[in-house]
Amino acid sequence: MRNLRLDIEYDGTNYHGWQVQKNAPSVAAAIEQALAQVLQHPVRLNGSGRTDAGVHALGQVANFLTEHDIPERNLQRALNSLLPRDIVIRRAVEASPGFDARRDALLRYYRYQCFLGEHPSALYRRLTLHVRRPLDVEAMRRAARYFTGTYDFSAFRSARCDANHPVRTVTDCRVLDERPFLYLDVKAQAFLRSQVRIMAGTLLEVGQGRRPPEDIPAILASKDRKRAGATLPAKGLILMEVRYSQRA
Amino acid sequence: MRNLRLDIEYDGTNYHGWQVQKNAPSVAAAIEQALAQVLQHPVRLNGSGRTDAGVHALGQVANFLTEHDIPERNLQRALNSLLPRDIVIRRAVEASPGFDARRDALLRYYRYQCFLGEHPSALYRRLTLHVRRPLDVEAMRRAARYFTGTYDFSAFRSARCDANHPVRTVTDCRVLDERPFLYLDVKAQAFLRSQVRIMAGTLLEVGQGRRPPEDIPAILASKDRKRAGATLPAKGLILMEVRYSQRA
Repeated sequence: MRNLRLDIEYDGTNYHGWQVQKNAPSVAAAIEQALAQVLQHPVRLNGSGRTDAGVHALGQVANFLTEHDIPERNLQRALNSLLPRDIVIRRAVEASPGFDARRDALLRYYRYQCFLGEHPSALYRRLTLHVRRPLDVEAMRRAARYFTGTYDFSAFRSARCDANHPVRTVTDCRVLDERPFLYLDVKAQAFLRSQVRIMAGTLLEVGQGRRPPEDIPAILASKDRKRAGATLPAKGLILMEVRYSQRA
Repeated sequence: MRNLRLDIEYDGTNYHGWQVQKNAPSVAAAIEQALAQVLQHPVRLNGSGRTDAGVHALGQVANFLTEHDIPERNLQRALNSLLPRDIVIRRAVEASPGFDARRDALLRYYRYQCFLGEHPSALYRRLTLHVRRPLDVEAMRRAARYFTGTYDFSAFRSARCDANHPVRTVTDCRVLDERPFLYLDVKAQAFLRSQVRIMAGTLLEVGQGRRPPEDIPAILASKDRKRAGATLPAKGLILMEVRYSQRA
């Protein structure tokens, strides 16, 4: 039995997220369908994590099992010719027998993309959230620093989050000012549901002067979702990279 | 009578170019329709130049006449709320009475965007041409230098070009290597039809080793369209900026 790893880029605009769902197009379902067509057997893809409806990815990772002996490069070409153009297999390689894209992930890196200015962007409208008000980026940077570390992120999880434990370790959280783009980069081994979008929404409120950076520790300590900021729209969020140990 | 100037960004994917046409959606027609709705009179937009079907713009400029006294900011907001999201008015200002967006342009700056790699980009598929083969960027840079200057660009014009004279002055032509993106930037006061796309196609053939950089002077001298490279697809081309004198 071969264990194959796929690295996947997608524009999530037209999908109800990564995860296979009944009666709604998903990225995983589109790839599973193409895989079944190439390999002539049903396939279950194991993704590094779900991305919500409308979220994009440059580096989603998934693995699956097959007994088919197709060379990886041929598989990749066949998939890319079958898939719609908003999903691209960036890499297909044979993984070690035990590799599990979800369980073995050491780091997940998400970027939230804002477009700053009085009017939204036409060219990047699908990949950015338009932010009108001038932002205090220095205040956002100070606030972002409070997120680095191991905390109970209950205040930053969606009501639909089904994780057993709310403690997560954010290894990096920073603000990149590349006007007219503003990027919020967050890295952690794992995230709670909607965590990055709620963190980004809270940072944005700090940037707009609606709360001081020093509020972040108190919001974390409160474990109260109502104390944190709004969940930002999915379209600004990109799963940039998932990292594994060398052996994987 | 007021002479108003609009700076316009658009994603050209869904339009048959800038110019108003019968039975085909165009960017200018969409803006003229929105203007007529706001100003309550028919408007004829005078753009800095036509862009072909599928070509994008970050900084297209147009002007029009009106007797309406609406403040520019209100007009801009009204237009952006009426226009589809792939067209955005980035700026609306009162121009000097004689300002003519087409005639007064001192410089037009176009960028052709390639995405390098074995497989295309999902996120940037609408704004980039996928280029698979490895490119010799240094050879492309040497070739690009030959385009700077005043030449008869007959070999680099579409058969449909209706300009009276084929001589143009390219003030800058350069290759920017920002993998996985490769940008071809070209500036001139004016261009012939498809000139940038044919120049880019020729540079790409140089990068792929299909002709030496030193061919460019001979192709220019030949004035023969068949000697130059292919016209690259519209989707990689962006009108970045149109420059005018301070007084305009």
